[in-house]
Amino acid sequence: MKFDLNVSFAFSNDVSSIKKDLEKFLSDFNKTLSAKDNTVKIKEIKINKNNLSFSIISEDTLRPHNVLLNLKNSIGREFGKKHHVGVREIKINRYTIDFYLERKALKKVKIPFADVKIKNKKATISLRNITDDFLQRNYIDRMISRVKEKVDNQYYEGKGEFWKLVWESVDKKPVWDKDPTEEMSKLGWLKQGPTKGKWFYRSEATAILKTMEKIAIEEVLKPLGFKEIIESNIVPFDVWLKTGHLEGMPGEIYYVAEPSTRDVEKWEKFIDLTKITREVPFGELKKNLSIPNAGLCYAQCPVIYWSFKGKTISEKSLPVLVYDNTVISTRYESGGRHGIVRVDEFHRIEPVYIGTREQLLKLREKFLDRYKHVFNDIFELEWRMAWVTPWYMQQAGKIGEETTQDTGTIDFEAYMPYRGDRKKSEWLEFQNLSILGDKYVKAFNIKAQKSELWSGCSGIGLERWTTAFLAQKGIDPDKWPKGFRKYLTKLPEGISFV
Amino acid sequence: MKFDLNVSFAFSNDVSSIKKDLEKFLSDFNKTLSAKDNTVKIKEIKINKNNLSFSIISEDTLRPHNVLLNLKNSIGREFGKKHHVGVREIKINRYTIDFYLERKALKKVKIPFADVKIKNKKATISLRNITDDFLQRNYIDRMISRVKEKVDNQYYEGKGEFWKLVWESVDKKPVWDKDPTEEMSKLGWLKQGPTKGKWFYRSEATAILKTMEKIAIEEVLKPLGFKEIIESNIVPFDVWLKTGHLEGMPGEIYYVAEPSTRDVEKWEKFIDLTKITREVPFGELKKNLSIPNAGLCYAQCPVIYWSFKGKTISEKSLPVLVYDNTVISTRYESGGRHGIVRVDEFHRIEPVYIGTREQLLKLREKFLDRYKHVFNDIFELEWRMAWVTPWYMQQAGKIGEETTQDTGTIDFEAYMPYRGDRKKSEWLEFQNLSILGDKYVKAFNIKAQKSELWSGCSGIGLERWTTAFLAQKGIDPDKWPKGFRKYLTKLPEGISFV
Repeated sequence: MKFDLNVSFAFSNDVSSIKKDLEKFLSDFNKTLSAKDNTVKIKEIKINKNNLSFSIISEDTLRPHNVLLNLKNSIGREFGKKHHVGVREIKINRYTIDFYLERKALKKVKIPFADVKIKNKKATISLRNITDDFLQRNYIDRMISRVKEKVDNQYYEGKGEFWKLVWESVDKKPVWDKDPTEEMSKLGWLKQGPTKGKWFYRSEATAILKTMEKIAIEEVLKPLGFKEIIESNIVPFDVWLKTGHLEGMPGEIYYVAEPSTRDVEKWEKFIDLTKITREVPFGELKKNLSIPNAGLCYAQCPVIYWSFKGKTISEKSLPVLVYDNTVISTRYESGGRHGIVRVDEFHRIEPVYIGTREQLLKLREKFLDRYKHVFNDIFELEWRMAWVTPWYMQQAGKIGEETTQDTGTIDFEAYMPYRGDRKKSEWLEFQNLSILGDKYVKAFNIKAQKSELWSGCSGIGLERWTTAFLAQKGIDPDKWPKGFRKYLTKLPEGISFV
Repeated sequence: MKFDLNVSFAFSNDVSSIKKDLEKFLSDFNKTLSAKDNTVKIKEIKINKNNLSFSIISEDTLRPHNVLLNLKNSIGREFGKKHHVGVREIKINRYTIDFYLERKALKKVKIPFADVKIKNKKATISLRNITDDFLQRNYIDRMISRVKEKVDNQYYEGKGEFWKLVWESVDKKPVWDKDPTEEMSKLGWLKQGPTKGKWFYRSEATAILKTMEKIAIEEVLKPLGFKEIIESNIVPFDVWLKTGHLEGMPGEIYYVAEPSTRDVEKWEKFIDLTKITREVPFGELKKNLSIPNAGLCYAQCPVIYWSFKGKTISEKSLPVLVYDNTVISTRYESGGRHGIVRVDEFHRIEPVYIGTREQLLKLREKFLDRYKHVFNDIFELEWRMAWVTPWYMQQAGKIGEETTQDTGTIDFEAYMPYRGDRKKSEWLEFQNLSILGDKYVKAFNIKAQKSELWSGCSGIGLERWTTAFLAQKGIDPDKWPKGFRKYLTKLPEGISFV
């Protein structure tokens, strides 16, 4: 890396008379710096009337922008008392940073605040006309990382995810080959919701989803010792800044805008116009809304981690095993919607576990046992498990090359007969199980009395369980497997319309 | 009422030559009108070159703005073919409407589109420089209604709600006099949520809320034959335009803003800035958001009614008895927040019933029996019931004077020992039960094969049940009533922090 920072200091008075002193001071300062990092140098020193300009260069750990603040303060201390001059203004004329990439960029890279030039593996960031405030804000290192990340992502784009089979069931003869959403819609068990990608589940479909919920709780979560909590449906940006969701998928979030006031007088014109025109006066609405600072739940784990923020957990409470079964997940899906499988609004039970590495690895085995029990003995599914790229890496725009056996995500996939041949068609990801290492416990500063903590989660999507089951087993309760019929033998009678 | 509309028609050619014909035509038209409504008159007819101007006045059912369109078309038919002239432009010079109020206005009234003057009980609306398009939009009658409504509301402002005691339990000796939210917060059972007016319920508090849910379903809803449905958490404005929520409480809604795009390139600058600055770039966010066209669930019934929109229900399916126990209610409370009792986010089971008047009156009796069973035998509460102003009237800004015994709302109120003396302190409204007549079935055009339909709902707020119960019975399970202990005898062990 090579840093080259050119700066002008404007002093409160003419400093020509103390030129020698200043040069001596800078020369001494230079020596002190070199002792710490011999690549750092102050050069091109020019003194003219009120003005001192110079460059700071470095090639190692000590960065010119960090040196600068220190230098400014030292000059103030040294010359303020003795010569009654102070630094009025700092102007950054130029800041150029060269660094090397692991691979050549495949296309142009842009970032805010700077020009980026890349030639072969050498990248150059140039900043102009910035303030010293800007330099103090610690953006430089993150700008360098962002350039590297963008080049890395160019290599991952369009590349398939990592996928490695772990286990697969035997082939099962499906009861039918229909799309469950379509069939349930025809029967009126389901109805498209009042906005895009949402559904209204009438009592027949509700009974099935609620049975999935019951099975998940009774057969998986309770036996493993999980306890229910209730979290908020609304997630503020500061939580998502910690988990990376805000930068990871801002285009998939449903944002929440609060009224800027509850004052009836401020809303009077909105109310008048609505009552008179029977249309929504969007102009008036805009005037009375705040800019969003939160969004609807995307995944349940961020707020669960937030609830432990800054806490130190007693050893006896480890592993922490909690789940949320209340909040509703909402994702802006735009083009990719299909049936109840890929929707903007869905219902998920999310267990979160926090404990030592050993506790979580052991828990994962127990989870696998319970899930196998449900999918084999109760649903009698044709399904398989595979190691995949951890979702949080995908979300952060990073596609991993492989996963370890310790941290990582296992996807559970079910054969969807309505999609065609079991070998050629895409199977449905209907469950996952992750151990995420210390990523989130660190982000929220969660500690244990003694142990090092890891965490993980395992989203149980009710729409996904329902679809996996119905796609293979059909919607006639008489044909459902015995194990499932212990939970649901008969659907509630629906409402007849004429 | 007195309407006075002054209009100018600009013709495509000079009409001086056919002045006589025009006058004759208008005179005939006048006669036809008078036959329908003898208060209608066309007068002050002036013809000058291309221009015809006149006034239409009326004092009865036939309104000048309705006459106008008819007249324009008739002139077109009559003179277009014969004289090759047509009406190029219509200018409304003045439209004045006088009408009488039931009571004097107490202060000035303003509405959009018009000046309003009120002298004693006589109101005058004056519109100027409007287009004939505007007149066709049917705003006039709604503008008149809005003025009347605003004057009526001046009388209701600050006036107490209607409240009439129906039934009260005997006094009960409370176990304690603490505020349950405060005590549970101290014990860590509860924690304030990540945004205003929301809570995070740890496993101890969750167990209590979930017990309330179970009791409501097992002891009230199932015995009455209700079936569960699952609705969407996101309510589009067009649904609230029908129910009146959008005009009733726009300042209490949490609005939902979708991304205007999911395109990663469009979000790139947002992502870059977030990663580099670790702050939210609100300017970039604004660029990528749509204006809200929906909000979070305020009450559950609107979307349930929507699900029956335009349907005709078979007689055999009546009464329809459904409930939603999935979506989360969100209300912007601003100043009035307190504990888990008055919050921005709460959990409610909402049964909705649609049937004949007789069916619903019978159902209400059965509901009362079940609620009495829960509040007397299971919770052993000190509570009372009162007829109150139907909530939908309050929401529409109308405070009723009284309610009938057929339609209307019964509030259930519990004594809160922590608020002080049972005679002087405010009791908590912890349940309600409404029959709303045909208001909503009409709004959504819901019909039965033969019968006239009514509807109603009865929100079961879990936070309210929890608070009513804990405020009287304390948080020590050993001291809870036997009936409640059948459902919950022991709280889950919480997590210890050091």
